Amino acid sequence: MRLQTIINGITATNNDVIKEAKKRVDSLAKPLGSLGKLEDIAIKIAGITGKVKNKINKKCIIIMASDNGVVEEGVASAPQSVTLAQTINFTRGLTGVAVLAKENNTNLMVVDIGVNTDKKILGAIDRKIRKGTSNIIKGQAMSYSECINAINIGIEMVKNAYDEGYNILGVGEMGIGNTTTSSSVLISLTGCTVEEAVGKGAGITKEAFEKKKWVVSEAIMVNNPDKNDPIDVLAKVGGFDLAGMVGVFIGASYYKIPVVIDGFISAVAAVAAVRLNPLVRDYLITSHCSKEIGYTIAMKELDLEPMLNLDMRLGEGSGCPIAFSVVEFSLAMMNNMATFEEAEINDDYLEEVRGEENYIV
Amino acid sequence: MRLQTIINGITATNNDVIKEAKKRVDSLAKPLGSLGKLEDIAIKIAGITGKVKNKINKKCIIIMASDNGVVEEGVASAPQSVTLAQTINFTRGLTGVAVLAKENNTNLMVVDIGVNTDKKILGAIDRKIRKGTSNIIKGQAMSYSECINAINIGIEMVKNAYDEGYNILGVGEMGIGNTTTSSSVLISLTGCTVEEAVGKGAGITKEAFEKKKWVVSEAIMVNNPDKNDPIDVLAKVGGFDLAGMVGVFIGASYYKIPVVIDGFISAVAAVAAVRLNPLVRDYLITSHCSKEIGYTIAMKELDLEPMLNLDMRLGEGSGCPIAFSVVEFSLAMMNNMATFEEAEINDDYLEEVRGEENYIV
Repeated sequence: MRLQTIINGITATNNDVIKEAKKRVDSLAKPLGSLGKLEDIAIKIAGITGKVKNKINKKCIIIMASDNGVVEEGVASAPQSVTLAQTINFTRGLTGVAVLAKENNTNLMVVDIGVNTDKKILGAIDRKIRKGTSNIIKGQAMSYSECINAINIGIEMVKNAYDEGYNILGVGEMGIGNTTTSSSVLISLTGCTVEEAVGKGAGITKEAFEKKKWVVSEAIMVNNPDKNDPIDVLAKVGGFDLAGMVGVFIGASYYKIPVVIDGFISAVAAVAAVRLNPLVRDYLITSHCSKEIGYTIAMKELDLEPMLNLDMRLGEGSGCPIAFSVVEFSLAMMNNMATFEEAEINDDYLEEVRGEENYIV
Repeated sequence: MRLQTIINGITATNNDVIKEAKKRVDSLAKPLGSLGKLEDIAIKIAGITGKVKNKINKKCIIIMASDNGVVEEGVASAPQSVTLAQTINFTRGLTGVAVLAKENNTNLMVVDIGVNTDKKILGAIDRKIRKGTSNIIKGQAMSYSECINAINIGIEMVKNAYDEGYNILGVGEMGIGNTTTSSSVLISLTGCTVEEAVGKGAGITKEAFEKKKWVVSEAIMVNNPDKNDPIDVLAKVGGFDLAGMVGVFIGASYYKIPVVIDGFISAVAAVAAVRLNPLVRDYLITSHCSKEIGYTIAMKELDLEPMLNLDMRLGEGSGCPIAFSVVEFSLAMMNNMATFEEAEINDDYLEEVRGEENYIV
């Protein structure tokens, strides 16, 4: 199917079910609104699936791994080879996200969408477009058609997950240099300043930080992306990983699967996806508040708020497993909590003289 | 054992093991500090247990249920009978905390420490001091010795949990009117203003809110609690539930079990416990950022930060099960993530031509 057909095929969440879900939440035995975002999440998911009560059966994080030509400018703290090494380590279950995912039975789908190697990575899905993007201060990262290809790969991965019965998704990434591309995309789409959008990524020196800010400005000046065309922005100053994640957000909305944003990079991808179709916003669930500065701008654009305050800045999709657990708590509330009517009590629960203590309930 | 003996018997967490745990966290294959509070929690728990690697086997929330005489002033949105009804509903598995607790295999220990009924509540532990405290604007809530009794009950509950193998605890409460007593205790201990400490609890009218602020000021003026004696403060303007929770924090520190703070009320109890022995602080783990205004003052006093941003204000201990899950993620990181050395890769993970796709890892 053509990309534009998918984008236009995204439909709104179910407003009648949202109303019904809200009514049930308000009937539960608690002060109105007192479970905050747990209530919001359960209601949002009801709107997505079209059912008031939902259950998460299979959880998956789709991780887009790719290299970025811009690393030759010295904007990253780690060498480019780390992209390949960590992509392999996802499949070995050794990275941060892999360990956290295993903790609550979340699977990983690792996609090589442009890692700088000629070889194949065992356990990863090979959808390599090419061995990393071009250096964005010398021209555009990729061609317009390569960008469409990358977005389509993200959609394809969601289609696979959908067919396999996954009913919640997260997005993750691995790509040394991708906070530089993410900042460039965020500025191009929103018009925010370099100071608001460029952070220190995994941790760089003061000199490298100044260089990074210059690189971002230069990349935007050289490429002059069209802010009204998110695909043009992603092609010129983005990366295969970012475009692939945009595809995951688009695909999840199309197939009506709730999808969790991780940190800064995935939040920027979400902004681009929402620009392609504003209905995408209603399929998004946040996770943690990234320490990377541009995250705040992205959340403001999305009009969303993170639900975890864990000072994390690892990326990889590492916030998603924790968010999945919160989602499961929110669905438990919706499915199992008593209504005011059900919570009414009578004397059966009291007695004059009690027998054996059996107090751990 | 006398209360003062227990309070003085609390020992510091293990600094050598904290250093060893920090060293391991810093050796894991990720940018330094990039897992934020997950790192802090795993290190803190190592210091508590004296082991670098830990596992949660049994989780329990100790819920103190009690009535407060001050409700006759009209400071609460719900009638006093709700304390009894919800205490029963904890044991029936129907309340917010009961449903969330069940979701991740957390048990509840429901303690009737002063519910206004002559009958016994099936499934709750009967440690009723009396049928609710006295009205704090007419005199002190309870006698000094009743307060010591309530704290000792909290400690006793931890002793039971310790004997049964629970290795993480949370605190919860049920007691209509207990945001009024909590605000009074917080002001008495910290000297903060009524505006900083008094919120709308479960939700009250503007008139009732003004009344509540007056009641808090009046209670403090009438009783003139000694800020240097937390037991005097709890006895004069607190409640059985608050004092019982103080006992849980003291007991958990004494028995070296990590203990999770829920929302505003338990945070105030934690402040009082830390005043009794500052070492208690190192045994505390936060959960969600309560919407109740005084929570922020309490966290500042404790020099702690919440890790969940869920806009919750239900109380009951409802933040604890979610915090337990985050703790379990943090321990998974410590126990299972690869070090930089272990994360090194070789060509075994690559191949020239790949066979069958087997990509969900």
